[in-house]
Amino acid sequence: MSMVTVYSTKNCPYCRMAKAFLDKQGVAYTAIDVGADAVAAQKMIDLSGQRGVPVITVDDDVIVGYDSERLNALFGTPAGSGQYDVIIVGAGPAGLTAGVYCARKLLKTLIISENIGGQALESWAIENYMGYRMITGEDLMKRFEEQVRTLDVRLELGRVSGIAPEDGLFAVKTASGITMKAKSLILTQGKQPRTLGVPGEEKYMGHGLSICSTCDGPLYKGKKVAVVGGGNSGLQTAVEMSGIAASVSLIVRSTIKADPVYVKKLEGIKNVAVHQHSQITALAGDPFLERITITTEGEDDQNIDVDGVFIEVGWTPNTEILGGLVDLNNRGEIIVDVDGCTSRPGIFAAGDVTAVKSKQIIIAAGDGAKAALEAFEYVMKQG
Amino acid sequence: MSMVTVYSTKNCPYCRMAKAFLDKQGVAYTAIDVGADAVAAQKMIDLSGQRGVPVITVDDDVIVGYDSERLNALFGTPAGSGQYDVIIVGAGPAGLTAGVYCARKLLKTLIISENIGGQALESWAIENYMGYRMITGEDLMKRFEEQVRTLDVRLELGRVSGIAPEDGLFAVKTASGITMKAKSLILTQGKQPRTLGVPGEEKYMGHGLSICSTCDGPLYKGKKVAVVGGGNSGLQTAVEMSGIAASVSLIVRSTIKADPVYVKKLEGIKNVAVHQHSQITALAGDPFLERITITTEGEDDQNIDVDGVFIEVGWTPNTEILGGLVDLNNRGEIIVDVDGCTSRPGIFAAGDVTAVKSKQIIIAAGDGAKAALEAFEYVMKQG
Repeated sequence: MSMVTVYSTKNCPYCRMAKAFLDKQGVAYTAIDVGADAVAAQKMIDLSGQRGVPVITVDDDVIVGYDSERLNALFGTPAGSGQYDVIIVGAGPAGLTAGVYCARKLLKTLIISENIGGQALESWAIENYMGYRMITGEDLMKRFEEQVRTLDVRLELGRVSGIAPEDGLFAVKTASGITMKAKSLILTQGKQPRTLGVPGEEKYMGHGLSICSTCDGPLYKGKKVAVVGGGNSGLQTAVEMSGIAASVSLIVRSTIKADPVYVKKLEGIKNVAVHQHSQITALAGDPFLERITITTEGEDDQNIDVDGVFIEVGWTPNTEILGGLVDLNNRGEIIVDVDGCTSRPGIFAAGDVTAVKSKQIIIAAGDGAKAALEAFEYVMKQG
Repeated sequence: MSMVTVYSTKNCPYCRMAKAFLDKQGVAYTAIDVGADAVAAQKMIDLSGQRGVPVITVDDDVIVGYDSERLNALFGTPAGSGQYDVIIVGAGPAGLTAGVYCARKLLKTLIISENIGGQALESWAIENYMGYRMITGEDLMKRFEEQVRTLDVRLELGRVSGIAPEDGLFAVKTASGITMKAKSLILTQGKQPRTLGVPGEEKYMGHGLSICSTCDGPLYKGKKVAVVGGGNSGLQTAVEMSGIAASVSLIVRSTIKADPVYVKKLEGIKNVAVHQHSQITALAGDPFLERITITTEGEDDQNIDVDGVFIEVGWTPNTEILGGLVDLNNRGEIIVDVDGCTSRPGIFAAGDVTAVKSKQIIIAAGDGAKAALEAFEYVMKQG
């Protein structure tokens, strides 16, 4: 039996996903909270070369981040190839709801997703999901998942790498090389955090750059950090990090666009310096980030010493895997009609990956139901 | 203090609405189950001239059906005229969800509806509302209503009789003559049962004709009835009534279109006669229905003696009150875009009243949230 250790922090959703996966597979592991244990934090950084959680060690193997493919290869039952009526890509609120509706229509259904719960897992207190006055995203997604699991739906962890039409069906390929086929597809793969577009960004990801402050924030106790982004999440992160880090530089491309309530919170805080009309133009340090260059309109460039940078500049839809299969809008979101149909017959979509303006759990769930009922009608017509 | 008596049957949603209203207003009443008590049933019919529930007596006054206007006039606090940011018409899943979202955006919001819960109240076992494996429509709507009531939203009982643009606002008039105005509207008033279009239909409504078999079915014990409609609800009603009534004539305009599961249930039942390619063309009897005439393709007309007819021929959207204010499709449903916008700026719509194909609680709720967030954006732009 392997010795498994999970290095995590308390509020990190990706850490919870990893633990939930191991629990489900019956894998015993030691959990270490590196937010509370500085010695363990240093050990994790030495082992992985990473300042970011989760890190999972399996004997001498080190898995960095929530890597569903590697975890599945080591401990899971990898998705077999097969043919379905419907393949649902993504298992957030839209995908799980679509799964329930497809199963109730007795369609042979596969849900494939990197995680179960999607972005909803990151919500701490949800007060606008009808039926619950207050629930955490994690608890609500657990209920969604349980509802799926009472029905005859296959729910697989895996990363989809490409989708293509093939012999009148749609072929869905995973990163681990498996191909599954279906008469119809429901796309609910959501969106992912946008990055900066600065040279060297990939190299520093996990070496000072982070896209999840709730995950990695505790690793920057007493250090100097920057936060990029002037929206609600940018300001929220700056406020939170001001209580953990020694100093925070808040870097905003134009001006602060957050709601007044966040602006007010920021006002009273002394260790946050705000740089408006500014962007990061260079990253330096080896192997960890040590310094950033900021370019501000009408001013000379300045270098700032930082140990970490938290990126909060919005989200981008996960539509590269589609390779032009369906029409997208200028933000890369899938264009759908009021019933969840895309530009291509047999492909339906719902949730944050679509051009529907408001991104909300109840909206994703409702649109997931629409997409499933349309997929059912489509499959019935195919005979 | 008035002597109030509610004559009702066990499973009648309109009876529950009436009782819930009286409970909420703290009105004491005597409840009589006329499905279980034949003497009381006859007394109710004598008092009201009606074979249909609910019947409510208030001293010597008799209120027939769930008449929100009269109940409100007698016991309620009638809606005052006033000006709002948003008026939401309807309080089913779409309207209540829109209410929560509007209130959280601090819009001055009024919900006006004939009932709270809408058509969802008639669902006995809901297994596809995400978050609940199994819940009754009534319980789920109670939770929705409670969620609205924790927030600053005015929720009024009343029947909207007309809507018109007025001085850059929208004026909403109720049947009781009150006018309220708002910068924007969210239309979620759902749909209502379709009727037969036979001369004398109105006269016989409650005198033998019924649009709610779960309400009035128990009043036809051992009697002869007809059911009109060849869809799922028509067959379901025929099966249910076969256990209560002496005989059932099932009258279907073309052929039976119900799911195989209902067709199979009907097959084994002896006291149901099926008339396909048939319609009711005349009603007779005084004051109660005694006889119907059926016209069948390629056959002579025939008269059938019946005490009651249950109409299950589908639903029609409640859009006559709009008077051409927004574009409708050929079924009279409001045309919306993916974000819930109608053809007229400032008016948004969600739920069963719209052209969205699938009519489901979770879909209505999701689209209610979309409409509210669009209304918020619209109101903000008006300043």
